[in-house]
Amino acid sequence: MTHNRRMTLAARPEGEPGPEHFAMVEAPFAPLPPGKARMQTIYTSVDPAMRIRMRAGKSYIPPFAIGETVGTYSVGQIIESDCDTLPVGSFAWSFSGWETHPVVGRRSAFPIVPVGVPLSAYLGVLGFTGFTAWLGLEDIGRPKPGETLLVTAASGAVGSIAGQIGKLRGLRVVGVTSGAARCAMLKERLGFDAAIDRSAGDFSAQMDRACPDGVDIFFENVGGPMQAAILPRMRMGGRVIMCGMIAQYNDAAPEPGPNLMAVVTNRLRLEGFIASDSVDRLPGYQREAGAWVQSGQLLSDETIVAGLHNGPTAFRRLLGGDKLGKTVLQLAPDPFAPARALSSATP
Amino acid sequence: MTHNRRMTLAARPEGEPGPEHFAMVEAPFAPLPPGKARMQTIYTSVDPAMRIRMRAGKSYIPPFAIGETVGTYSVGQIIESDCDTLPVGSFAWSFSGWETHPVVGRRSAFPIVPVGVPLSAYLGVLGFTGFTAWLGLEDIGRPKPGETLLVTAASGAVGSIAGQIGKLRGLRVVGVTSGAARCAMLKERLGFDAAIDRSAGDFSAQMDRACPDGVDIFFENVGGPMQAAILPRMRMGGRVIMCGMIAQYNDAAPEPGPNLMAVVTNRLRLEGFIASDSVDRLPGYQREAGAWVQSGQLLSDETIVAGLHNGPTAFRRLLGGDKLGKTVLQLAPDPFAPARALSSATP
Repeated sequence: MTHNRRMTLAARPEGEPGPEHFAMVEAPFAPLPPGKARMQTIYTSVDPAMRIRMRAGKSYIPPFAIGETVGTYSVGQIIESDCDTLPVGSFAWSFSGWETHPVVGRRSAFPIVPVGVPLSAYLGVLGFTGFTAWLGLEDIGRPKPGETLLVTAASGAVGSIAGQIGKLRGLRVVGVTSGAARCAMLKERLGFDAAIDRSAGDFSAQMDRACPDGVDIFFENVGGPMQAAILPRMRMGGRVIMCGMIAQYNDAAPEPGPNLMAVVTNRLRLEGFIASDSVDRLPGYQREAGAWVQSGQLLSDETIVAGLHNGPTAFRRLLGGDKLGKTVLQLAPDPFAPARALSSATP
Repeated sequence: MTHNRRMTLAARPEGEPGPEHFAMVEAPFAPLPPGKARMQTIYTSVDPAMRIRMRAGKSYIPPFAIGETVGTYSVGQIIESDCDTLPVGSFAWSFSGWETHPVVGRRSAFPIVPVGVPLSAYLGVLGFTGFTAWLGLEDIGRPKPGETLLVTAASGAVGSIAGQIGKLRGLRVVGVTSGAARCAMLKERLGFDAAIDRSAGDFSAQMDRACPDGVDIFFENVGGPMQAAILPRMRMGGRVIMCGMIAQYNDAAPEPGPNLMAVVTNRLRLEGFIASDSVDRLPGYQREAGAWVQSGQLLSDETIVAGLHNGPTAFRRLLGGDKLGKTVLQLAPDPFAPARALSSATP
């Protein structure tokens, strides 16, 4: 093991990204700079927000440069180190990306003390995905028991956690997903009070049935026409957690949004947030959610795809619809997961 | 003086309201109920928000019934009383409406201690209009000195106060209005740093010149295409004070709004509010703003229209474009204003 492989952005996609927008680059390990560590990536994230960084325009983080590694969150083991917070053999999560052996440091990688769950949890339910759900609900949603929470992309990585935390906070929780099977999963497995099938074509009528008294908290992951249908159904004093708008990430130009008159008349608050602004609160989340995960009160699904070369395909599938839970690429064996043949996990 | 006259809603307007949607009703005074008082209205408000209540649909306050008095804020003198907070001869502002002699009580009318300015100020700069500007800026805008505030309908009743309070709070203030004369008035008379002429046709280019670094606080009174042009120009962490959307009050169906992706990427907060929720803070505002008015730091313009019969015309003109300051109907002489022939004030 003396070579690093990384998946780079080869061209900016217009519309749907495909394998032609990526290029694999392999190079021998460079000497480790002072104060740094080399990590072997075990899992790396496949995350809708990466689509935003494939555009040239300004956003909350700089766009990827052409030729740059596709960046996201990863988890791995330190194999070489000149950094005292990241000793050889320890586990860490990092801001690195689709790369087998990133060089990380004390400001880009953070120790993990494994608690007996597969390390992929630190990219999902115990990582930024779950943290995003928790932070949005706590800071923007400010839930009061008995209120109604509506979650879009509710079977997705963030949405499925947001809905479950909503139940733990005493809310009535309604999820929007596609297909009868996923609706059943939300209700039967994750404990949602109701589910709306956005592929069934009568969205407004389903909304009226599932939320007859309107919506107090709207956890918005999708955007598009659903947003316009939901906003006028917000109750007085409602809060909209603007977490993402996956329906629009492939759009070349922004679509119109909902009329905002409801914001005036119903005293609504719509608020965007970025979990990385609040990274200092991640350990607090991990303590609270770690107990829920271990007691079985907080379930999460993962789609595990083997190999860096399958990243572009996994990413395209992720943007195409609500996936079941968090999607990750596995690049090396996980000592905390049951043994599995990686090739069988190919999508 | 033994008769009450009131202007009622005769029909719900579709689109622009006109005299045909109103009817004057005159009746002898009814006996005063216990605990109530009879007020002679001196001024009554002409207020864009009244348009919302002419619709049948749900809003933040119930719609007017057909045949009901057109309700708004008024100021007047008590002429008959069985209410100890409202003695005969005292002055009060009230939730009453386009009516010469409303019956009011301790929960619908509040004493005014005149400070030597015309009583019309209590419907404008020292009343709910100014209070709305102050409350939105303080609670939602949370201004920090040096930030850029953009105000739409900036020569209007709320906008002109919001911009001036913005300057008093140390902000850079940019106003949007129509016509070169109003732009000059904003800069030369009210001290705005820049003005944008929305009738000039190059709104985006003017925005780029007037707000080269974007907008931190957007005081939104207008809606429509301007809203869609401004939202993507909000800076990271920006706040949108959703006060009103006068451009849309005559629309039968809601238009699409701006794409909300900027809310996610730039961590924006959009918030609607209703000043009457915070009526307990009105005296605090009146103390702070009363000092500014008396020292000449806070200027306000008024359009005074004589007579209840001119209400529908004044209301239509108000919705047609930015008026200069607050529009009120004068129904009786104001002992604190210079004598004026009321007929000369007819629009």
